[in-house]
Amino acid sequence: MPRQITSFSNATVKRLRSLRDKKARREEGLFLAEGLRIVAEACDSGRLPEIIAFSAAGAGHPLAAEIIAATEAAGGEAIETSADILHKISGKDNPQAVLGVYRAFDTSLDLIDRAAAPLWIVAQALRDPGNIGTILRTGDAAGAGGLILIDDCADPFSVEAVRASMGALFTQRIATARWDAFIGWLRGGEGELIGTSLNADRDYRQPRYRRPAFLLVGNEQAGLPPAYEAECDTLVKIPMLGRADSLNAAVAAAVMAYELVNQWRA
Amino acid sequence: MPRQITSFSNATVKRLRSLRDKKARREEGLFLAEGLRIVAEACDSGRLPEIIAFSAAGAGHPLAAEIIAATEAAGGEAIETSADILHKISGKDNPQAVLGVYRAFDTSLDLIDRAAAPLWIVAQALRDPGNIGTILRTGDAAGAGGLILIDDCADPFSVEAVRASMGALFTQRIATARWDAFIGWLRGGEGELIGTSLNADRDYRQPRYRRPAFLLVGNEQAGLPPAYEAECDTLVKIPMLGRADSLNAAVAAAVMAYELVNQWRA
Repeated sequence: MPRQITSFSNATVKRLRSLRDKKARREEGLFLAEGLRIVAEACDSGRLPEIIAFSAAGAGHPLAAEIIAATEAAGGEAIETSADILHKISGKDNPQAVLGVYRAFDTSLDLIDRAAAPLWIVAQALRDPGNIGTILRTGDAAGAGGLILIDDCADPFSVEAVRASMGALFTQRIATARWDAFIGWLRGGEGELIGTSLNADRDYRQPRYRRPAFLLVGNEQAGLPPAYEAECDTLVKIPMLGRADSLNAAVAAAVMAYELVNQWRA
Repeated sequence: MPRQITSFSNATVKRLRSLRDKKARREEGLFLAEGLRIVAEACDSGRLPEIIAFSAAGAGHPLAAEIIAATEAAGGEAIETSADILHKISGKDNPQAVLGVYRAFDTSLDLIDRAAAPLWIVAQALRDPGNIGTILRTGDAAGAGGLILIDDCADPFSVEAVRASMGALFTQRIATARWDAFIGWLRGGEGELIGTSLNADRDYRQPRYRRPAFLLVGNEQAGLPPAYEAECDTLVKIPMLGRADSLNAAVAAAVMAYELVNQWRA
């Protein structure tokens, strides 16, 4: 049976709310995912929450009821609470009626099986969690296997990243690594490292891309460091027809990813 | 000579800060743009701020000094203030050292000259100002003439949209219109209306797109209303290879826009 929580000062409410902060996520090894759509995607991908919190309205949805029951059956905790308390936890004006707390994944690079997908996206020092989530969502759509986060990226388990991923956080593999470790791993097997750069001469549609492809996306402000560009097997540019010299990082990743998809399905 | 402002309770500080709210922007007919990069882009596009606020560090940049002088020469107001006060105005933890206040543009649809560009992006009920700004940035890069906002979209003059546009707000035309007025205007001249839909059978790379193209992007949650899809001359789908059924709206707009760019430059 779900536990009822009606007090804002309840310790569990405080604990869930604390998961909006990276430090608490690290310490607890847990993260928040809001909304039935994302919680259902997680469930379809074989992941149940350790804690599921919901309003009476949320529990009224048959799919939510099913996931709540499955969570309890698996030894997880189900908490029925008010929309106001869900609002306090999520910090959103229109909180979702269902909220899951998940165990953070092991993000070791050596858990990545590069043969499992034709495309892997590699993000370098991406600071915006919305971009991380959007790239996960795009990766899912483009048939990527996952996202490898290099250097100091925004936390993929942040509420903003999980939300922007629309559930792809649960379907894409996620790894974190320093650049040197990543390159060592990459060169231990097959794979073409592809970067986009303002300095490249070659149009992004010109090369015939090989599989598995590792698509490297640079920091929002600075792009890729020169040494990282130098390591790329293929360096290309996306044409810029206007006054700006670059695209949003998640947009550039998508334009590149769909070029690869289109070549491979041709 | 710049006016010095050192007090948080100064009326101008409060007025600038108020421009973070849509209501104040509407009433004043003004909006904020943060950062030398965006202010310089505006200047290059022939727009000087009515007010320019900056820290001593900001004024130390030669390009900033030039724009400050040009603003004063054009009868605008220059305000030197502290980083703390700029932080209060912008609400950002790391405020930019230069901030411009601009007159909002006339967004009448009949100011759009469709012959001026091969591509126009049309956003329907987009709620996320970051998406609006990112689409403006993509539009600039893809050679679009501008962005037409249909139904109730997020405010393109919000701080978040201006920031995400990276200056493209000043290089792209922006219009706002109700759907019926837009369709009346569209059908009064040449133009192919192109929509993306989960319900379409046709792959987005199959049609040969004509110019001018009007690329219709639907609401983040709901996509395009059926009646709007029915009005499209061409309805296509972007392949989705994973579990998700849609891309982020700004990403979908970019994938489509670059397909048009690629066809036209082939």
